[in-house]
Amino acid sequence: MEQFTPTQIDALSTLVSTDRFSTGQSNRELHTKDISPHRGRLPAGIIWPVSTEEVSAILGYTYGQGIPVTPWGAGTSTEGNPLPVEGGLVMDMTRMDRILAIRPQDLQADVQPGVFRKTLNANAGRSGLFFPPDPGADATIGGMIANNASGVQTIRYGATRDYVMRLTVVLPDGRVIPTGGKAHKSSSGYDLTRLFVGSEGTLGVVTEATLKLAGIPVAHLAATVVFNTLEAASQTVATLMGSGLSPAALELLTPELIGLMNREKGLGIAEKPSLFCEFHGVSEAALHETAALAEELCRDSGALDFQTGVKERERKDLWRARHEAWETIHRAFPGRETLIVDAAVPISSYPQMVVFSQQQLDAKKAVGFVFGHAGDGNLHVVMVGDPADDGEWASLEEINDSIVHRAVDLGGTCTGEHGIGIGKRRFMQLEHGAGYALMKQIKGLIDPRGLMNPGKMFL
Amino acid sequence: MEQFTPTQIDALSTLVSTDRFSTGQSNRELHTKDISPHRGRLPAGIIWPVSTEEVSAILGYTYGQGIPVTPWGAGTSTEGNPLPVEGGLVMDMTRMDRILAIRPQDLQADVQPGVFRKTLNANAGRSGLFFPPDPGADATIGGMIANNASGVQTIRYGATRDYVMRLTVVLPDGRVIPTGGKAHKSSSGYDLTRLFVGSEGTLGVVTEATLKLAGIPVAHLAATVVFNTLEAASQTVATLMGSGLSPAALELLTPELIGLMNREKGLGIAEKPSLFCEFHGVSEAALHETAALAEELCRDSGALDFQTGVKERERKDLWRARHEAWETIHRAFPGRETLIVDAAVPISSYPQMVVFSQQQLDAKKAVGFVFGHAGDGNLHVVMVGDPADDGEWASLEEINDSIVHRAVDLGGTCTGEHGIGIGKRRFMQLEHGAGYALMKQIKGLIDPRGLMNPGKMFL
Ligand SMILES: Cc1cc2nc3c(=O)[nH]c(=O)nc-3n(C[C@H](O)[C@H](O)[C@H](O)COP(=O)(O)OP(=O)(O)OC[C@H]3O[C@@H](n4cnc5c(N)ncnc54)[C@H](O)[C@@H]3O)c2cc1C
Ligand SMILES: Cc1cc2nc3c(=O)[nH]c(=O)nc-3n(C[C@H](O)[C@H](O)[C@H](O)COP(=O)(O)OP(=O)(O)OC[C@H]3O[C@@H](n4cnc5c(N)ncnc54)[C@H](O)[C@@H]3O)c2cc1C
Repeated sequence: MEQFTPTQIDALSTLVSTDRFSTGQSNRELHTKDISPHRGRLPAGIIWPVSTEEVSAILGYTYGQGIPVTPWGAGTSTEGNPLPVEGGLVMDMTRMDRILAIRPQDLQADVQPGVFRKTLNANAGRSGLFFPPDPGADATIGGMIANNASGVQTIRYGATRDYVMRLTVVLPDGRVIPTGGKAHKSSSGYDLTRLFVGSEGTLGVVTEATLKLAGIPVAHLAATVVFNTLEAASQTVATLMGSGLSPAALELLTPELIGLMNREKGLGIAEKPSLFCEFHGVSEAALHETAALAEELCRDSGALDFQTGVKERERKDLWRARHEAWETIHRAFPGRETLIVDAAVPISSYPQMVVFSQQQLDAKKAVGFVFGHAGDGNLHVVMVGDPADDGEWASLEEINDSIVHRAVDLGGTCTGEHGIGIGKRRFMQLEHGAGYALMKQIKGLIDPRGLMNPGKMFL
Repeated sequence: MEQFTPTQIDALSTLVSTDRFSTGQSNRELHTKDISPHRGRLPAGIIWPVSTEEVSAILGYTYGQGIPVTPWGAGTSTEGNPLPVEGGLVMDMTRMDRILAIRPQDLQADVQPGVFRKTLNANAGRSGLFFPPDPGADATIGGMIANNASGVQTIRYGATRDYVMRLTVVLPDGRVIPTGGKAHKSSSGYDLTRLFVGSEGTLGVVTEATLKLAGIPVAHLAATVVFNTLEAASQTVATLMGSGLSPAALELLTPELIGLMNREKGLGIAEKPSLFCEFHGVSEAALHETAALAEELCRDSGALDFQTGVKERERKDLWRARHEAWETIHRAFPGRETLIVDAAVPISSYPQMVVFSQQQLDAKKAVGFVFGHAGDGNLHVVMVGDPADDGEWASLEEINDSIVHRAVDLGGTCTGEHGIGIGKRRFMQLEHGAGYALMKQIKGLIDPRGLMNPGKMFL
């Protein structure tokens, strides 16, 4: 659906103020692209609601009309998650950007979904608090909830799922549903909150959320650890995770990626298989004790070097470089698109996954970079190619396929954090078996007309 | 349904070995009572499956016959959760008691649902690991999953929900569904795992689970903190929770409860409003630093005394006494039943809830004891009475009602950890509003004949 009827345009126009509904070409085109190579169909219009009531009125109307609706956050997804593949209406949530309350005593914040995570953190920081899930991009809270986003600190602090306490959700037919509550724990009824977290906008639109916050740690300590082989580096991950030292970040980087980062960013990091670690604690003294234990474990596992002399500036540079890995790769290959593997496996299987992935790249002579949130068993391979070159792209997809099949064989998942979107739908049956049919039943129950973010998650 | 037909008895008998299906009176009576004052209807029979295949075959049969089925773990629930209120078949899970694997490198265990948590901990302990959720009773893993149980360590380690990675569930019609996976994180599809966690056996039977484990902390430190008023004690909770010191336990006890514990257990604890705290860390040195900071915060909040000289033996006695609070109360009033309030609120509202609850008891001259998992905002009031004495019991129910209404007004819940069962169904509409109807729709989708643990959660 690329065009509304004049009656539909009139009706939608009355539901929001005039500047917040557009059928202009440029606005519509802006909403057909995230960072994946996928493209949406041209939507018939864009709407920017500012309240739960508006969202409810809009969905009540579109449901009756059979108009597909796709929620949109910051558009930073990697799998086509927010693209309107059937056109229709794109509901851009970025004007619902109010922080309703930060309640330091409760360690909670109440927010609208269009708040950006960096904005939330800037505000929560004034109370000594932060919202820990940290995808590389500055995403909206709504997009993070819908994708169950996570990041480098998830090994210590958890994923978005672990920080959502309460939601207001508008169902596809306009019904407004509250979920969860503000108490720190509850055993009351079905966990509707977590049914919506990770549902990628296919079950309804999140219009308000209560989030848990954490205290900003008093002391940080970063360490870079260098190994001779990728295997030794990745084997050390399980040792560190089992140690009780509770690292706040534990990232694996390959020499190929570090080399690219050195060249593109002017860094001077050793081009060796490496772990980037971070530890958080109540005092510098406690952290030095932690670091000494970590060093011992790493050296026992064959580490060549363990550097903790990283100063605050360098620490920030290091993590910025890691956060911007995708942008760095993307920029180094202008005009090319990226295909991102996001498999995750139990930690004991991480070394074999890392080695297998690098071998796949080498065997197919593909351009790609292996790295990942090692402490979570989450493995990224960012591969570079031209989707218009059928042969080349198919070969990248084959690598993706073989890595995902291996991950699922090992009890893992096709996506540790990016979500299914368009790109990973073909793995759903493989990964979930009979659970996939139950997910489809739930989708059918809540969205019987199949209008919410159609063409995602399900094939 | 209190009797099977001879054909049904024959059919059920063929599905398991002869010693694992019983229509004997004593077995049936044993399965009509948990620790609540509620009573089940006499079931027609009890079955003890040992495998997913058997559970599937049994449910395939009962579904066709319209026989109600109620799963049963250790029967330690507080709200009638496992009682067969429509009779039918009780499925006792305690013979599915195999620990399938403890995988230390992955920090995970694969278990059948009838494993008891203490058994799991004894086994995991050999690898330096433990399963943190710790309800007072020695419950089964299946019962803990179904109730989303938690305990004194939940403020640091989380509830059962946070430790379930993967399930095998048999749906009411016998379909076998896998959920989740063994990777530490995933954004793949709807979170079916957490739909079943906390569903109290109303959506299907859990027949296998993969659980996350945590490393046993190197060092423990317990502290008892004494205050002049209940308000000062409960106000200190938010301070400690916001401090970043991350206590591993933070329990509130009233002088009345401590007095009873002293009398019944021969303890010599000061009969003052108190906080029992515990801290876990990587070393004794780090813990002493933590304790010094905690003491400073507590003294600033008006603590009269802060004792950390608690030795390992005393530490265990202290926590055992706290864990056995309910048994102690129960034993002190022979022939009486208990009605247990389990409300939870955001931490900032905890002081007013505590004070309000004590006032309610005083105003109605009811026998009851206030205490709770303060760090989670979870408040227990164990009230003692005789359900046959209509007037007395109604007055206890009124207290329960007024506390729950206050909690819900404050954004909290009627149950922080015990679940809805029979006793708290009347609060579901109040607490969940339009979410309650959606829960009913989900129940109808997965159990259209209403045969799984009927009469629970929904009115
Ligand atoms: C450089 C880079 C690095 C990244 N690193 C990570 C990483 O480490 N970890 C990670 O998890 N992700 C990462 N991502 C992916 C992305 O940033 C996250 O998935 C993020 O959560 C997307 O948020 P968004 O606001 O951009 O949402 P969008 O991309 O706009 O939308 C995401 C999904 O949410 C839905 N949606 C949006 N708002 C709502 C709402 N209010 N209600 C219901 N549904 C809604 C959309 O329909 C869509 O399905 C990275 C992206 C980039 C560009
Ligand atoms: C002294 C005492 C202290 C307690 N303290 C706490 C506490 O601090 N925190 C807390 O959370 N609870 C506490 N409880 C309550 C209780 O121990 C927990 O709720 C526990 O999880 C119940 O487990 P169970 O094995 O006894 O399950 P049961 O009581 O037998 O059953 C509980 C529910 O689970 C269902 N069920 C059982 N097995 C399965 C299965 N395999 N598949 C699907 N459904 C199943 C049943 O149908 C029922 O609905 C306490 C109880 C006592 C007696």
